[in-house]
Amino acid sequence: MKKHNFSAGPCILPQEVLKQAADAVVNFNGLNLSLIEISHRSKEFIEVMENARSLVKELLNLPEGYSVLFLQGGASLEFLMSAYNLMKVDGKAAYLDTGAWSTKALKEAKLLGDVDVIASSKETTYNYIPKNYSIPTDIDYLHFTSNNTIYGTQFKEFPKTDSLLVCDMSSDIFSRELDFTQFDLVYAGAQKNMGPAGTTLVIVKDEILGKSGRDIPSMLDYQKHLNADSMFNTPPVFPVYVSMLTLQWLKDLGGVKAIEKLNEEKAALLYAEIDRNPLFKGFAAKEDRSLMNVTFNLTDEATGEVFDKIWNAAGISGIKGHRSVGGYRASIYNAMPIESIQVLVDAMQQFEKEI
Amino acid sequence: MKKHNFSAGPCILPQEVLKQAADAVVNFNGLNLSLIEISHRSKEFIEVMENARSLVKELLNLPEGYSVLFLQGGASLEFLMSAYNLMKVDGKAAYLDTGAWSTKALKEAKLLGDVDVIASSKETTYNYIPKNYSIPTDIDYLHFTSNNTIYGTQFKEFPKTDSLLVCDMSSDIFSRELDFTQFDLVYAGAQKNMGPAGTTLVIVKDEILGKSGRDIPSMLDYQKHLNADSMFNTPPVFPVYVSMLTLQWLKDLGGVKAIEKLNEEKAALLYAEIDRNPLFKGFAAKEDRSLMNVTFNLTDEATGEVFDKIWNAAGISGIKGHRSVGGYRASIYNAMPIESIQVLVDAMQQFEKEI
Repeated sequence: MKKHNFSAGPCILPQEVLKQAADAVVNFNGLNLSLIEISHRSKEFIEVMENARSLVKELLNLPEGYSVLFLQGGASLEFLMSAYNLMKVDGKAAYLDTGAWSTKALKEAKLLGDVDVIASSKETTYNYIPKNYSIPTDIDYLHFTSNNTIYGTQFKEFPKTDSLLVCDMSSDIFSRELDFTQFDLVYAGAQKNMGPAGTTLVIVKDEILGKSGRDIPSMLDYQKHLNADSMFNTPPVFPVYVSMLTLQWLKDLGGVKAIEKLNEEKAALLYAEIDRNPLFKGFAAKEDRSLMNVTFNLTDEATGEVFDKIWNAAGISGIKGHRSVGGYRASIYNAMPIESIQVLVDAMQQFEKEI
Repeated sequence: MKKHNFSAGPCILPQEVLKQAADAVVNFNGLNLSLIEISHRSKEFIEVMENARSLVKELLNLPEGYSVLFLQGGASLEFLMSAYNLMKVDGKAAYLDTGAWSTKALKEAKLLGDVDVIASSKETTYNYIPKNYSIPTDIDYLHFTSNNTIYGTQFKEFPKTDSLLVCDMSSDIFSRELDFTQFDLVYAGAQKNMGPAGTTLVIVKDEILGKSGRDIPSMLDYQKHLNADSMFNTPPVFPVYVSMLTLQWLKDLGGVKAIEKLNEEKAALLYAEIDRNPLFKGFAAKEDRSLMNVTFNLTDEATGEVFDKIWNAAGISGIKGHRSVGGYRASIYNAMPIESIQVLVDAMQQFEKEI
């Protein structure tokens, strides 16, 4: 039976990418060797890494002076690395608190300097994106999370500051066209729109590095990774390769502009049903609704068992909401086809008939 | 043409493991979902992680009170983490310098405290393992590298200390039976005897943690990873899965005792040819020769072109020596069949006839 995988991450990847990845595990590029048993210093793997880095630059239209890294440790290690590289000794940073991931990020920064939480939507379980906050001018950087998977909220406009702007873009990078010149540092765990878990994309404006006045441990130092062309140590070969394949898939499909249009259609279809169907209510404030993670609750919790039976029977998986929000979360990342969203909408309509 | 892959790491893995891994990338456990697109919090993946952790305990015969983690960042991040967790504030650690990896390890420790290099074989390009050094008693821990891939040296006996003993076992773990009660912390990048690049095995004696007096960043804190059963953040799903398959392969084959016997036979075959064939000389001191990485040079460098043509024609790959040692390095990890070593020995003998 066909599965419709709405997991929040690790999540759906394009079927053709999965097939190519499986082939490479047995015989990579006709070498009669597996991708995962060749040296990372071989010309074949260096080509993979360089291709992946170039595809990021091309797809995001990165200007000169920005570099791309594929690291390890997930966004969780970037919470620490971003602060280590940018927070000056006795420095200060501003954080926008829009959910669990922002909270984790600022916790790590506190080990290295002062953290000013300039806005938070915690009191309403992060169901909206704060606006009209004021940004201090005496900060080393401002950090925010562009999309909040758990709550289904997304920044539509970005903070403006003369200080450095740092963005955790783990769950919506490559989903919409953005002007990257406004960012100084962007990081993203691969396991949403880019590939499998196990690698982290980092985009950094070269000129911001080397100014913190700190002795940075080697593995936490962006400059050391840049100097080594993202191979300071053995990279996570398979996750980088699958990311490269997924980026190539996105390019072939027409790039970020094309996928943004599809993502808007997909989200519109599902949000329309949530707003129409009296058995459901959306969780996130309408103006802040995410195009990637659609969160919704039952108007009557007692009906849950009936709905769960219906979507289960339809082959849907991964739509249970996070425990802090309850209800449902449909993650509809780049690789999710609109046909699967229609299956979910059909299940919601069948539920309305049955109840 | 069949390839004989002598790469130093990433390196050869069992053929059946590669096939199972490829299958799981398309359809994992008959779920009609890929291993790399399901949630790491699903019962199916939790089972993979728990199985991998148990196999490590079983295969290494770990006593009660030791825990197993699968992390990210490679041994390079462990250089930092081991020091962060064990070096006390204003503390001191002793390091045995047996090569490039030891040197990198102690460099990171220096950021956190005093480092006493109690022995080094640097002056002879690390071609032997230092002995008869004295170990200070006022240290937080002693760190050493059990096998030195670049130089082909290996500790046959381990340092004895009343302080904590820390071992980077990246390139020979699971290759020989050892009494793990002598170690307090062991770490190993997966990409030699365990799996693909992208995960790091950590074995830690629980009682040593929490005593450094430091505020440890979350991702660098072994205790936080232990509290979360090695899922503090999204783990590198594919590398952990392939490691689990490789550990299961090793168990089916008879475990570490059985592979140790095979490893001894394989190494004996190759070292015998190096010692017999007048065109070659071994690099490492005989008593310290590694069972994993066999380093050797030509007695006459000018003959290299002839030999290179012969082994290339035999389908051998990955035996060029590291630039600091020159010559050749045949890495003969657990998954290397003795038949491939015979192919190399045949090539060495054909070379003797042709020259």
